[in-house]
Amino acid sequence: MPSSQTSVRDTTVALSAAVTRPFPGSEKVYVTGSQPDIRVPMRRINQAATQTSTGTELNPPIYLYDTSGLYTDPTASVDLLQGLSAVRSDWIQARADTAELAGPSSAYGAQRQADPATAHLRFAHLRKPRRALAGKTVSQMHYARQGRITPEMEYVAIREQQRLDELRNDPAYQGLLQQHPGEHLGAHLPETVTPEFVRSEVAAGRAIIPANINHPELEPMIIGRNFRVKINTNIGNSAVTSSIAEEVEKMVWSARWGGDTLMDLSTGKHIHETREWILRNAPMPVGTVPIYQALEKVGGKAEELTWEMMRDTLIEQAEQGVDYFTIHAGVLLRYVPMTAQRVTGIVSRGGSIMAKWCLAHHQENFLYTHFDEICEIMRAYDVSFSLGDGLRPGCIADANDQAQFAELKTLGELTHRAWQQDVQVMIEGPGHVPMHMIKENMTQELQHCYEAPFYTLGPLTTDIAPGYDHITSGIGAAQIGWYGTAMLCYVTPKEHLGLPDKEDVRAGIVTYKLAAHAADLAKGLPGAQIRDNALSKARFEFRWEDQFNLGLDPERAREYHDATLPKDAAKVAHFCSMCGPQFCSMKITQDVREYAAQNRFKDIDVALEAGMQEKAGEFREQGGQVYA
Amino acid sequence: MPSSQTSVRDTTVALSAAVTRPFPGSEKVYVTGSQPDIRVPMRRINQAATQTSTGTELNPPIYLYDTSGLYTDPTASVDLLQGLSAVRSDWIQARADTAELAGPSSAYGAQRQADPATAHLRFAHLRKPRRALAGKTVSQMHYARQGRITPEMEYVAIREQQRLDELRNDPAYQGLLQQHPGEHLGAHLPETVTPEFVRSEVAAGRAIIPANINHPELEPMIIGRNFRVKINTNIGNSAVTSSIAEEVEKMVWSARWGGDTLMDLSTGKHIHETREWILRNAPMPVGTVPIYQALEKVGGKAEELTWEMMRDTLIEQAEQGVDYFTIHAGVLLRYVPMTAQRVTGIVSRGGSIMAKWCLAHHQENFLYTHFDEICEIMRAYDVSFSLGDGLRPGCIADANDQAQFAELKTLGELTHRAWQQDVQVMIEGPGHVPMHMIKENMTQELQHCYEAPFYTLGPLTTDIAPGYDHITSGIGAAQIGWYGTAMLCYVTPKEHLGLPDKEDVRAGIVTYKLAAHAADLAKGLPGAQIRDNALSKARFEFRWEDQFNLGLDPERAREYHDATLPKDAAKVAHFCSMCGPQFCSMKITQDVREYAAQNRFKDIDVALEAGMQEKAGEFREQGGQVYA
Repeated sequence: MPSSQTSVRDTTVALSAAVTRPFPGSEKVYVTGSQPDIRVPMRRINQAATQTSTGTELNPPIYLYDTSGLYTDPTASVDLLQGLSAVRSDWIQARADTAELAGPSSAYGAQRQADPATAHLRFAHLRKPRRALAGKTVSQMHYARQGRITPEMEYVAIREQQRLDELRNDPAYQGLLQQHPGEHLGAHLPETVTPEFVRSEVAAGRAIIPANINHPELEPMIIGRNFRVKINTNIGNSAVTSSIAEEVEKMVWSARWGGDTLMDLSTGKHIHETREWILRNAPMPVGTVPIYQALEKVGGKAEELTWEMMRDTLIEQAEQGVDYFTIHAGVLLRYVPMTAQRVTGIVSRGGSIMAKWCLAHHQENFLYTHFDEICEIMRAYDVSFSLGDGLRPGCIADANDQAQFAELKTLGELTHRAWQQDVQVMIEGPGHVPMHMIKENMTQELQHCYEAPFYTLGPLTTDIAPGYDHITSGIGAAQIGWYGTAMLCYVTPKEHLGLPDKEDVRAGIVTYKLAAHAADLAKGLPGAQIRDNALSKARFEFRWEDQFNLGLDPERAREYHDATLPKDAAKVAHFCSMCGPQFCSMKITQDVREYAAQNRFKDIDVALEAGMQEKAGEFREQGGQVYA
Repeated sequence: MPSSQTSVRDTTVALSAAVTRPFPGSEKVYVTGSQPDIRVPMRRINQAATQTSTGTELNPPIYLYDTSGLYTDPTASVDLLQGLSAVRSDWIQARADTAELAGPSSAYGAQRQADPATAHLRFAHLRKPRRALAGKTVSQMHYARQGRITPEMEYVAIREQQRLDELRNDPAYQGLLQQHPGEHLGAHLPETVTPEFVRSEVAAGRAIIPANINHPELEPMIIGRNFRVKINTNIGNSAVTSSIAEEVEKMVWSARWGGDTLMDLSTGKHIHETREWILRNAPMPVGTVPIYQALEKVGGKAEELTWEMMRDTLIEQAEQGVDYFTIHAGVLLRYVPMTAQRVTGIVSRGGSIMAKWCLAHHQENFLYTHFDEICEIMRAYDVSFSLGDGLRPGCIADANDQAQFAELKTLGELTHRAWQQDVQVMIEGPGHVPMHMIKENMTQELQHCYEAPFYTLGPLTTDIAPGYDHITSGIGAAQIGWYGTAMLCYVTPKEHLGLPDKEDVRAGIVTYKLAAHAADLAKGLPGAQIRDNALSKARFEFRWEDQFNLGLDPERAREYHDATLPKDAAKVAHFCSMCGPQFCSMKITQDVREYAAQNRFKDIDVALEAGMQEKAGEFREQGGQVYA
């Protein structure tokens, strides 16, 4: 990928094989909905059969929710210069409530598009923006409240369902469907996710489908606590480092490992152009914090921000296709003093920018005073709110304090106002919170924000591990996900220290995927345990390749295995490097089972009751030799 | 370090600088107790002062619990050939209830000591073993129940207390002492840990001080839920790989990063000699699973194990100085069939060995039938029980099942029997458990095992992340530590895949240290939050070096910082690579505070009330320039 210093289009645009290589043992499959252009991608992992003394037992394929887009489909050709195909365009046009504009209707967008100085950085195939017809609202919430099931809703239902209904009727899956009942705070997890259930959750505001009409490349997904827990990844250049090309490659990399949504937090040069490249190639919803760009436009001087400039920035980004905006409208003037005695004050960038503006002008936050106008813009493109927690705690000492909860209540008030205009809303949450204070964040959010989806950053459960904050926060993320948080914003090992590179992004995503999955298991999401069961069965049966392939990071698992036992023969060995052949508990247990099977007892229980004593001698001769 | 193929003594025995280098910004200090040979080590981190517009604010030193032994004391000379000095010898002899033996009283120990074939591997300065005088019990529990406070108990009290009483009276610490009240399951965390409190907890069986009289090199520590949460690390060679020298270096490495105890799980050659080298150089309690060695003695054939051989092995290891034994006495014959329908059967090595023996003989587990005799051996050396959970679940599907809880109840019965002989006990726990089922493990353990300390492996909260199981289990470990588990057995990234190398050990330990600390915060351990507060204050004030030094892994934190901003100037920069100078929320917050201070308002609250409006103009001129 090229650097931002040269023309993006003049250089090689193929993604490196490192970010597109297919997952081992996997194939990309699509499940088609009620119309042929609803094609929902899944990853299918094919397993080897189990060889037993009585014959061959087939192990069925496992289907995974797949966020990786076309990038892992070997039959697809991806051209970053063209962008992804606009799979949603027909759906949007069929609704007949939008029109194509002649060009960007934001002053900045128009200027930027015409600027020869940035021509070499510009995405070549700019689509003309669409906007709702006058008086129309084009949000998924609006349609849902009208009782309409959109293709996006059907797509999401198929995607969440992951063929579970069919698997339930397939005898090959019976053993794998075993699952513990979960425990949750009043969530309602349906046995079957139907399009109608999706509609009803979106209508109630309990879930959102971030899907800007100007991001037709999107593979729709849903964020709500009655669905799978999702994760967000952050990328973005800053004044200090990073280029456009690196950011696009990070986006693809992020999709590969399982990022459900992506925030572009760029604060450096060429924010506008970087975002365009990302959006045109992004299969996932993309979010931004528009105030960052607004601040850049005034040379970094918070006090010079104006509503007019912010308004133009919102329109600029909405017309590019940003799916959700973080808006720090809850940082009210009267809350700022509540942070003065904190150990770490205000740690949200957006929050501190707005606090500075409020103090400098001694006026109320203009995002708050102009909130209804913001809603009017967002409903015309279906941009969702991610109501920012500008006063979130930045350390354990500041957790759950007055400032944080005061802002949360204001976010609830704003949720109500956004919903009056049918604008979709999620609520951002902390931050740094010790474990015993995490649940209160969830219960307060549900209460004050009317069950709008919660979207938290971690939380970090201690401050003492810089370099390992993906883990300190993964602990908190798993817990708050269990309690009902719908989406977890990832943290990388570089948090607090530096900008993440690709390996940091991978570590952060895998950590958050496992935290989200642990939360799904604890909530009792139907079907969630299939993958655990399949992987554990493969482990017990020494199907090493299947164990690797079923994991979140097959390449890392294989690499770790090979570090001790590199030979291919070890991949079929009925022991591993940890204990060696004599000490393997799994091998011994299998011996015990084999013994029972060979003696034609249905199970060991019966065997024992039938008089194990007389069999003991035989066992001594047979035991230990089954896998000799 | 030499390999086991050549003479250990003939080669260089200096530890590599990599495992002994001092921690940056730190010094080793000792707090002396009521007698001069009670010298409790602590690590003292010295902080830089904060420069403010009104002058210099001193930041006090922070004291850390220090497990690293003499290896990080630059004034100490460590000779692995000599072993550590026997700091406890005088205490043990002063009790006048033990005698030195002429030599090992186990047949195997005597044979091994005389075997010329292993002479080149043998530790040179073998001490003669000690044993209780006939009829005497020499356990810390025994003394505690007699109302005696031993030097070990006083040492432990000072160590747990970490000078907290003094800090409470020192004005320099006032801001750092701020702490959230915790939440716990009926634990009683005292404001001040006194020697008498330690005694009473040990007497009640709620805590143990693993301290074999033949391990006088030990720096005593305590395991109990009313104290700091501890972590255990595992090392050990296997038939497949590893040498004696590597294991000793891993032990030192483990101490360095914060391992509180260490289990030697060797199953390969030279178990006896490896253990001797480790014990003579180990500042922490060392545990083993004696059945592993017993099995090696019978060529790996579980069915050939006998009580007589096990008995000799227990005495052999007790006389070397092993501080706690994992004994799988709860794997009863009638429980084995309960595991037949599991997805992963029996995954504990010791558990599967005993299950195989039980089935082969159709007899009750000989560790159970001879349990009282085992207690008689252990009380004569003060070896503590770690009652093994041989039937722990090996996957999510098998969590909290009948087999697991049946065994737990038997462990409770055995706890009661061990206590009748004043033998110290802790209870091992799972394993693989989804989050919502973790708490039940703790409540059942407290109920059935009379509050004996719980010692769990993780638990892993999902099975789908091989290569990241330090994290899947760190999530469960933090939770169960919060609920009351006294010690967490670490898991490395290589779990299920291969043998950990040094970097894996480091990653596993740091993950478990942060999980244990998160648990301490959530329980409300007095003083636990000082380190978080100090680190966060350093972070907020851009004291980068202090932020690194106060973290669990200063070297990694610095390395990550330098990956983006390598220059020394960046270590004093008032921004970082994440946002750059214009977007730094911490900088903006500081600007706000500075503004208030410059205007002689005590805090911003007053400033606002006094009429911020008229100050707004001034702020616009001053703001943003404070750190220009």
